[in-house]
Amino acid sequence: MIEQPKQEAFLYEQVASNIADLIRQGTFRPGERVPSVRQLSRQRKISITTVLQAYMLLEEQGLIETRPQSGYYVRSRLAMGLPEPEISTTAPDPTRVSVRELVMMVLEDSTNPGLIQLGAAIPNPELIAAGKLNRILAKLAREAKGEINQYDIPPGNEALRIQIAQHAVEPGCNLTPADVVTTSGCLEAITLSLRAVCHPGDAVAIESPMYFGILQVLESLDLRALEIPTHPRDGISVPALKFAIEHNPIHACLVLSNFNNPLGSCIPDENKQELVELITDHEIPLIEGDVCGELYFSGTRPRVCKAYDHKGLVLLCSSFSKDLVSGYRVGWIVPGRFKATIEWLKYTTNVATASLPQLAIAQFMASGGYDRHLRSIRRIYASFVAQMSQAVMRYFPQGTRVTRPNGGFVLWVQLPDYADSLELYKQALPAGITLAPGYMFSATQQYHNFLRLNAAWWSYEAEKAVRRLGELVAEQEGLTEKHPTS
Amino acid sequence: MIEQPKQEAFLYEQVASNIADLIRQGTFRPGERVPSVRQLSRQRKISITTVLQAYMLLEEQGLIETRPQSGYYVRSRLAMGLPEPEISTTAPDPTRVSVRELVMMVLEDSTNPGLIQLGAAIPNPELIAAGKLNRILAKLAREAKGEINQYDIPPGNEALRIQIAQHAVEPGCNLTPADVVTTSGCLEAITLSLRAVCHPGDAVAIESPMYFGILQVLESLDLRALEIPTHPRDGISVPALKFAIEHNPIHACLVLSNFNNPLGSCIPDENKQELVELITDHEIPLIEGDVCGELYFSGTRPRVCKAYDHKGLVLLCSSFSKDLVSGYRVGWIVPGRFKATIEWLKYTTNVATASLPQLAIAQFMASGGYDRHLRSIRRIYASFVAQMSQAVMRYFPQGTRVTRPNGGFVLWVQLPDYADSLELYKQALPAGITLAPGYMFSATQQYHNFLRLNAAWWSYEAEKAVRRLGELVAEQEGLTEKHPTS
Repeated sequence: MIEQPKQEAFLYEQVASNIADLIRQGTFRPGERVPSVRQLSRQRKISITTVLQAYMLLEEQGLIETRPQSGYYVRSRLAMGLPEPEISTTAPDPTRVSVRELVMMVLEDSTNPGLIQLGAAIPNPELIAAGKLNRILAKLAREAKGEINQYDIPPGNEALRIQIAQHAVEPGCNLTPADVVTTSGCLEAITLSLRAVCHPGDAVAIESPMYFGILQVLESLDLRALEIPTHPRDGISVPALKFAIEHNPIHACLVLSNFNNPLGSCIPDENKQELVELITDHEIPLIEGDVCGELYFSGTRPRVCKAYDHKGLVLLCSSFSKDLVSGYRVGWIVPGRFKATIEWLKYTTNVATASLPQLAIAQFMASGGYDRHLRSIRRIYASFVAQMSQAVMRYFPQGTRVTRPNGGFVLWVQLPDYADSLELYKQALPAGITLAPGYMFSATQQYHNFLRLNAAWWSYEAEKAVRRLGELVAEQEGLTEKHPTS
Repeated sequence: MIEQPKQEAFLYEQVASNIADLIRQGTFRPGERVPSVRQLSRQRKISITTVLQAYMLLEEQGLIETRPQSGYYVRSRLAMGLPEPEISTTAPDPTRVSVRELVMMVLEDSTNPGLIQLGAAIPNPELIAAGKLNRILAKLAREAKGEINQYDIPPGNEALRIQIAQHAVEPGCNLTPADVVTTSGCLEAITLSLRAVCHPGDAVAIESPMYFGILQVLESLDLRALEIPTHPRDGISVPALKFAIEHNPIHACLVLSNFNNPLGSCIPDENKQELVELITDHEIPLIEGDVCGELYFSGTRPRVCKAYDHKGLVLLCSSFSKDLVSGYRVGWIVPGRFKATIEWLKYTTNVATASLPQLAIAQFMASGGYDRHLRSIRRIYASFVAQMSQAVMRYFPQGTRVTRPNGGFVLWVQLPDYADSLELYKQALPAGITLAPGYMFSATQQYHNFLRLNAAWWSYEAEKAVRRLGELVAEQEGLTEKHPTS
């Protein structure tokens, strides 16, 4: 925030300087009107004359121009905003960067069109069902009466909850629309679930590695993460979880059951059943994320843990952000016995989820468009993941390992032990590439030589980027002694 | 959630019974297709024959019908869903109702088209800028490329932040777009602010009475409310707040500075300045809600406390939900020195606010449509509030008092001391009227004989409802001894 001038001397100069700041910082942009003389006089409690003097000064400085009978405008010959910061100046210094800051930087990278996007797990913008879905939204918006734009208070849009309940038959659930609460995406569903079943200081057993967003949620809620060994293909180790539960006070478990992010692991059906029996025996709530469940590459839709839940202890969380559209911000939760608390927490978080996006998705699902869309993108993501996997094998140095997921669109890469993924992130940015360093995927920073790659944007450019990353990793070998990773 | 059958005997009957339940509960509705025989066989791990037997039974029961080469469908002669629950069965028993449950009931009332809406402070659906704004949204959706439907990560949509910064000149702020973080409505902004500046157990000084949603947020975050005397016209008493700060550990202050909900009070400029000086002297963050600031009935746009903030201690929270459109769920926060924390908490809450609604509002503002819309609704709400106020005076018993707000659209009514607002809520529901009992507006339940009325939906029907309420209040007089209010 720019402070207002305080001294009364040369008041008009200070007013001019303040308006000039607002122009330079982008509040008023070339061609836009600045506040009228009367408006500014009233608001700043200064005389009309002072404002006129200030505006004359700004005119002299070439910042604004007057248009007859219309007012003062920012001159359009000004440069259109400031240049983007240079990539190198935003590169993190690993000795000063906390994981929180690193996460926020990797997220910010995701909005930089100048970077090859191998970092944030963002679906390919070409592969979200923009066309038909957006046309449904457009039609709804054109025809919408006032009612449709009111608060869609919890449990949320009924038409959408009916479609979600229908769609849950495939992964093995018998739901009624009343079992579903809609949310603004899956991370909101998970945040609400954790708030419903835990108190600050509680311990939550999680798969490891774990999507960094969820680790940040745990940190923001002052919860402790207990990382359970997790198989790159079969997900959480149920025996290890059993041991942990028997030796620690665990207040909730949290798994990404189908195509875990970043591992791509999928818990086999029998393990899911065993997992639900375990948590049921101990009366521990299980929060289950399933955002990639529809993105299976072959066979049938994997079941969800919720399918085995007869006591209402599983809170199934999902969204349309990975397989349909991220920017609509629509997800849901099947909260079992915690429904009243979840609805109340949803209300206190933001009252309701946006109405029209929910209704558009409901109509898209009812028309069969969602299923058709899923059938087409499954094949594409399967091909992208296979091609990226081959590229990693081809271009990365000996000793590299990579997951073989059967769904989703991310790969988890284990580099040779000498390599450091944060160093690699720093080196890759000036080369125009962003990636997700392994550090972000654990509360105990144990994945120094791992990284997650997003295959969703696979292209010739992405392949070149993978080759460049392989070279950068290989170059790290000689530097190991100068930059110890511990 | 409906449990799956467990015994294997008469398996097809159990499958049929389960599908019948899903039909009765609305997961599959008349005319819709039920899962295919193959799908159900695969998912339940039962034979095709068993599924066929089950579907034949459902056909005999008249629940589904087969369509050649297409599958099984729910028969359309079924009643279209269950009837609405009768109003009298949802009426609360005051001796068993917590404020939390009462709040959720009053919210649910707001979605019941059979009730005269004097309860939740929902703007009139005829007075939200549905037409032009929705056309902008429709155009954006039709033309949208994939990028536009990606995550609009914090601080949120830039075009909207520019408009918000420009619009903040009128209430006295000098903001750059970088000072603003967009949110999913104002309550989310307030929740994020409280999480950014407080820890569980901390005390927050608030105006009293206070909008019940904010009290619920405090409860959900395990914060304690310290209620400060508040004048029905001038808002929070700064001397009383000063005394409280000097005698209690206060971790944050929270005020609805312009047209407080439910009081309609507006803190005078000099008090705002004094308030900011007070919290600055004590380094206490001030969370300022301003959702009704644009809805002034006369004179100029009231300033915000943020206009006097030179230390970044004021977190200004607002939204478009009361003056433009509720269902888009778009708000914002100007978080001052807490910006990095707010962005991080926004990310961990739900990653981002929906993209297209933000962009549509930005274009509507840039076109001047927002200002034109505000000019027209201000006059209407001023007239509605005046008419409702007169009706309360005319129809309510002697001893009733009512606020005289200069903005917003709610009235705060003090009934004679014998009256009980929860009893009135119970009596009004069967008469088809919903209102907001005073109990909801305080953590200490001190407003037993107060109620908030929403004037936004003023109509001939609403006037009749106010008259009926007046009669019901008058009838309570004789019952006082039978139903003591303490």
